[in-house]
Amino acid sequence: MKMSKAAVLQEYQKPLQICEFPLNEELQPGEALARVEMAGICGTDVHLWKGELPIPVPVILGHESAGRIAKLGAGLERDWTGQALQEGDRVVWASSIVCGECYYCRIKRTPTRCLKRKAYGISYCSNEAPHLRGGYAEWILLRAGTSIFKLPDNLPFESIVGAGCALNTALHGVERIGLEMGDTVVIQGAGPVGLAALAVAIESGAAKTVVVGGPAHRLQMALEFGADAVVSLEEFPTAAVRLEEVRRHTGEFGADVVLECVGHPSAVPEGFELCRDGGKYLVLGQYANAGNVEFNPHVITKKQLTVMGSWAFEPRHVLGAIQFLARPRWRELFAKQVTHRFSLDQASEALDTVRRLEAGKAVILP
Amino acid sequence: MKMSKAAVLQEYQKPLQICEFPLNEELQPGEALARVEMAGICGTDVHLWKGELPIPVPVILGHESAGRIAKLGAGLERDWTGQALQEGDRVVWASSIVCGECYYCRIKRTPTRCLKRKAYGISYCSNEAPHLRGGYAEWILLRAGTSIFKLPDNLPFESIVGAGCALNTALHGVERIGLEMGDTVVIQGAGPVGLAALAVAIESGAAKTVVVGGPAHRLQMALEFGADAVVSLEEFPTAAVRLEEVRRHTGEFGADVVLECVGHPSAVPEGFELCRDGGKYLVLGQYANAGNVEFNPHVITKKQLTVMGSWAFEPRHVLGAIQFLARPRWRELFAKQVTHRFSLDQASEALDTVRRLEAGKAVILP
Amino acid sequence: MKMSKAAVLQEYQKPLQICEFPLNEELQPGEALARVEMAGICGTDVHLWKGELPIPVPVILGHESAGRIAKLGAGLERDWTGQALQEGDRVVWASSIVCGECYYCRIKRTPTRCLKRKAYGISYCSNEAPHLRGGYAEWILLRAGTSIFKLPDNLPFESIVGAGCALNTALHGVERIGLEMGDTVVIQGAGPVGLAALAVAIESGAAKTVVVGGPAHRLQMALEFGADAVVSLEEFPTAAVRLEEVRRHTGEFGADVVLECVGHPSAVPEGFELCRDGGKYLVLGQYANAGNVEFNPHVITKKQLTVMGSWAFEPRHVLGAIQFLARPRWRELFAKQVTHRFSLDQASEALDTVRRLEAGKAVILP
Amino acid sequence: MKMSKAAVLQEYQKPLQICEFPLNEELQPGEALARVEMAGICGTDVHLWKGELPIPVPVILGHESAGRIAKLGAGLERDWTGQALQEGDRVVWASSIVCGECYYCRIKRTPTRCLKRKAYGISYCSNEAPHLRGGYAEWILLRAGTSIFKLPDNLPFESIVGAGCALNTALHGVERIGLEMGDTVVIQGAGPVGLAALAVAIESGAAKTVVVGGPAHRLQMALEFGADAVVSLEEFPTAAVRLEEVRRHTGEFGADVVLECVGHPSAVPEGFELCRDGGKYLVLGQYANAGNVEFNPHVITKKQLTVMGSWAFEPRHVLGAIQFLARPRWRELFAKQVTHRFSLDQASEALDTVRRLEAGKAVILP
Repeated sequence: MKMSKAAVLQEYQKPLQICEFPLNEELQPGEALARVEMAGICGTDVHLWKGELPIPVPVILGHESAGRIAKLGAGLERDWTGQALQEGDRVVWASSIVCGECYYCRIKRTPTRCLKRKAYGISYCSNEAPHLRGGYAEWILLRAGTSIFKLPDNLPFESIVGAGCALNTALHGVERIGLEMGDTVVIQGAGPVGLAALAVAIESGAAKTVVVGGPAHRLQMALEFGADAVVSLEEFPTAAVRLEEVRRHTGEFGADVVLECVGHPSAVPEGFELCRDGGKYLVLGQYANAGNVEFNPHVITKKQLTVMGSWAFEPRHVLGAIQFLARPRWRELFAKQVTHRFSLDQASEALDTVRRLEAGKAVILP
Repeated sequence: MKMSKAAVLQEYQKPLQICEFPLNEELQPGEALARVEMAGICGTDVHLWKGELPIPVPVILGHESAGRIAKLGAGLERDWTGQALQEGDRVVWASSIVCGECYYCRIKRTPTRCLKRKAYGISYCSNEAPHLRGGYAEWILLRAGTSIFKLPDNLPFESIVGAGCALNTALHGVERIGLEMGDTVVIQGAGPVGLAALAVAIESGAAKTVVVGGPAHRLQMALEFGADAVVSLEEFPTAAVRLEEVRRHTGEFGADVVLECVGHPSAVPEGFELCRDGGKYLVLGQYANAGNVEFNPHVITKKQLTVMGSWAFEPRHVLGAIQFLARPRWRELFAKQVTHRFSLDQASEALDTVRRLEAGKAVILP
Repeated sequence: MKMSKAAVLQEYQKPLQICEFPLNEELQPGEALARVEMAGICGTDVHLWKGELPIPVPVILGHESAGRIAKLGAGLERDWTGQALQEGDRVVWASSIVCGECYYCRIKRTPTRCLKRKAYGISYCSNEAPHLRGGYAEWILLRAGTSIFKLPDNLPFESIVGAGCALNTALHGVERIGLEMGDTVVIQGAGPVGLAALAVAIESGAAKTVVVGGPAHRLQMALEFGADAVVSLEEFPTAAVRLEEVRRHTGEFGADVVLECVGHPSAVPEGFELCRDGGKYLVLGQYANAGNVEFNPHVITKKQLTVMGSWAFEPRHVLGAIQFLARPRWRELFAKQVTHRFSLDQASEALDTVRRLEAGKAVILP
Repeated sequence: MKMSKAAVLQEYQKPLQICEFPLNEELQPGEALARVEMAGICGTDVHLWKGELPIPVPVILGHESAGRIAKLGAGLERDWTGQALQEGDRVVWASSIVCGECYYCRIKRTPTRCLKRKAYGISYCSNEAPHLRGGYAEWILLRAGTSIFKLPDNLPFESIVGAGCALNTALHGVERIGLEMGDTVVIQGAGPVGLAALAVAIESGAAKTVVVGGPAHRLQMALEFGADAVVSLEEFPTAAVRLEEVRRHTGEFGADVVLECVGHPSAVPEGFELCRDGGKYLVLGQYANAGNVEFNPHVITKKQLTVMGSWAFEPRHVLGAIQFLARPRWRELFAKQVTHRFSLDQASEALDTVRRLEAGKAVILP
């Protein structure tokens, strides 16, 4: 039987193990087998590696991958949008599958909170057959019901993986909080989610964008993306001086909309202050549970804020990302974000590069 | 010169003083002089008395009063809605005046955050002429630009003062958070704001309402208002048991909408948990600054919450309250809330009754 | 083989034929066989009978029926909300099934416009096996994927069929147009959709409701439902006098929201005038194509109107209807709408009663 | 006494008369006297000239002008945004003044429908002192309460007048209908409103824009503005072929949003068909009453459309236009629209150029 190599998280905070798993090519109806061509290392992978979210281990990491269809199970003839699908097609797929039947899927139309949601690279124990449910691998076996998207010919893997789940997440988050053309927008965080949120804000017609974050190479990238100003955490080391500096750019009352893409709890109360009264605040970066922070709820009342969380994304946001990347400017900028490339054997090293915030985007080419 | 008695907050946490002020009957254009017939004691008055909000002292308290027009300044011929206004008319007035010209009034259309907003009974130092700018007084001198509303003949002072600024505040808050017919609604707090929010939720078609609060006499009132269930803080003394009890009523996933009407910071993180995922949370009770609380912002992301603050109200919400009280059921229930009546000389005692949570609603009849 | 009687529309505008069809009790996975206990005659059935919508004939009419589960196909163990489902359960089902995969279902989240939508009693030719796809029949065979809802024990067939698809439709329509507590609402039409829209408007907190329509027995029913006023087409025979009469009730500027539930094209330009400037207009009654009408689009610009159409409903609105009918007042009023009962053999007579606008609601008890 | 020349509409459809009016330099408090530097000829001026809207005559036309402050009345020290205002400042002003007190201003927050709204160049009879209330004049006397905006130094008169009231109108209209980043947008009409709507759609992140209109020189301008495609009325002379051509660009289901900027009633039913089901349609161009058209309201129900009107604009949209033109690309493109310049004496000729659709934008330099 054919085998597939994969990088497995066996134990939190220990190096990933390169393992081999049997590759069952007898597909069930609706399944697909894909050759992984590029797997992005997401910041969430670092949180998973640290053990900050409840997941099964061992697990093959990798939830933002793209590849080529190697085999299609019976009945799987079209991608999510209805385009014909064939072996050899370049594709990307939504990392999660939802049940479509639970309280959240059906009654409350909030499928991101599906009670049975499972995500490739996160929710599947690699000990259980068919094992190959993560992107840090040569092959991935996509379950029936996976939302698969054929990639346009002019959209390179670098762009779609460079944008990663960050762009899907940002599209969902900005859709929720609602950005109006002409808004002044502050983005907290210059990681992949921050830059994706910046791109979405610019494309939505923000009159001014300010990115608060670091390190320097990422702020440089923010400027290349089109940020009107950046505020460096190194140069402005306290919340008080950052508030002052942000207001220098936004006007004395603060931003219409603040997009939190940091992940550290302290960003949230700091961010409330960056909003003008009546402004909007998106809590987008707190995907992992990084613990408590003190805040004063009087601020929400007095500033009459609107605060929203946004969890992950739906398949239609993957389509949104593909359409977003149809614009040449963004297609190129997100591709350019891919600064580090690794082989599958170097998966641990790749993860480490992300953990140390060295990369624009690090990817594995399995 | 004629004089007017008034109850003055001279020093925080000390009894109010009964003072006399000269009553200038020479009105400027647009001004109005009103004989106060009934002044409600608001929970905020207790916060002001404690010194929890930045205000000038001495101050004549009283921002939810009603009375009769004694004299109208030149040019003041109609009430806010355009009805003819005459001496002798029974009226209520919005407590605040906004500038209509600042960044928040004009550009951001958020007049509750007007940079020059001033409120009767709160923002005017009684040392400064014309002194009579609070409701705990025989007479009040209403500035030009005050939003005055003629009361319908069938609307007694007990109803409009019994509803007080709580109903205006609740109408604004529920308008902001948005309640859909059929929603399951939890109200945290059984004080005047909580009961008003309950009334608005019921009238908006909530399928189920649950009030979490105390003391017993107020929960009894909540049931009379039409709450489907009450959860007593005495009977359920911890956040964990309250969550369990609330879910017994709302279903296992929690409420569609939670309306915070408590004022204690700890209500907020507790309330986030009472929401279903994708639910909405209104921070309405944190009008005073009661300090910090710990919370986990990951909850906002993961539960995909919408959290909104709402500050005070606009004149149109006073009109909304008058229209709300046109419904006989609510007109009677809010009048029935007035459980304690005091003379002006007993103003301190009245305030104390509210501070000790003994009253439904306490009022002064000056 | 067991047989089932059914009333079939063989030819437009001719009496329905009572036919017998073989009843295949060998269910496929996910299918259900139900004994129809009550089938409502919808106004749309009259339009179908007249040939005003493109449908296949012959067809077993009946898209608002309820009954008892007789047999469940493999794998069908729960209703749409997740409740356990068993033989003998009293149920109702959504009339339509959508594909969940097309442009409208997936990408635009507008499943009522699904490209492959099919409805019981409308879209299935009775010549084709398994024939029994309409409610005017002893038995109905529900396809896999049908949204089935178990009825609460205290909800009689009279209530759910008395409410019919009209309530589902009204819930969807009012959800789309958005009704705020305190709105003044005019309903054009006093048929089942009009009365259902009235009920939804009242329950949503409308401050005033005015129903324009006829005949007299239906306006009487509107008053029993709780309309504040009715305007009779007989008494006010022109658009001009109706406008005047409506404004007598709504105030000189017109209604905040007008809900069109008539079906005749002329209602629409008339209804635009019934709105205040900046008001909202729901085109709910134009389900059948009843042809053109003249209108002046300048009115939409000048009055700054919001006009919305709403087509049919989604399964969640059937759940909404069941929850709406949990309120005793509405459960009883909708049951009381059922004024005419017929046997299956009298199906043509039942349809005729509806065509002549004689019934509150006519039903068949097969 | 100093005199000011002005171009007056004395009689519908007759040449404008150049008259002289006395220039009273004794300003009342809050008034301002401005030297008109540039006056745009709006398409609405042609409608007014034809007599299609109820206005007083004689009237000095001109509602989209800009100039320099010559004198400020007592108390007028700041512009609408709060910036200090001085003689010599380059300014633009909102054409209308609203009362701020009527049913629409106050209660329904729809100031564009103010019951007492008056607009420079439209609503003031030039026979009545102080006469100078229109922009086709050397001088204009701005009433107290006029919303005046200081122009940024880098914003030339050509840009702001080139954008004219069309940009304000488009900003208001698109704000109302709501455009989401990624929408496919069709604009009906290539006049100044159509091009402004195109600009706003592009800046709001439309994924694709298609302009349907003419003549050729305006479609060429649409392409320069950034339209993805244009559909010429000459090349595609029937609604049926235009529908086919538009769908070739938008995909088979039609546009997410269609912005009507034509003014001819027949555009509206044609436009409904250009929308996808569930799409949105803005009726923006029907400012003048150009009469009736036949339509089928079943289309609104069946396609589940959202149709909105939008009337004129509020002062905040003038600020929006100034901020929009802060983007160099749009500042230049709108300035470039000014293709024809006339002296005040040539006002009739200027109007005629617009009537014959020859101009990008024609302006008067008084």
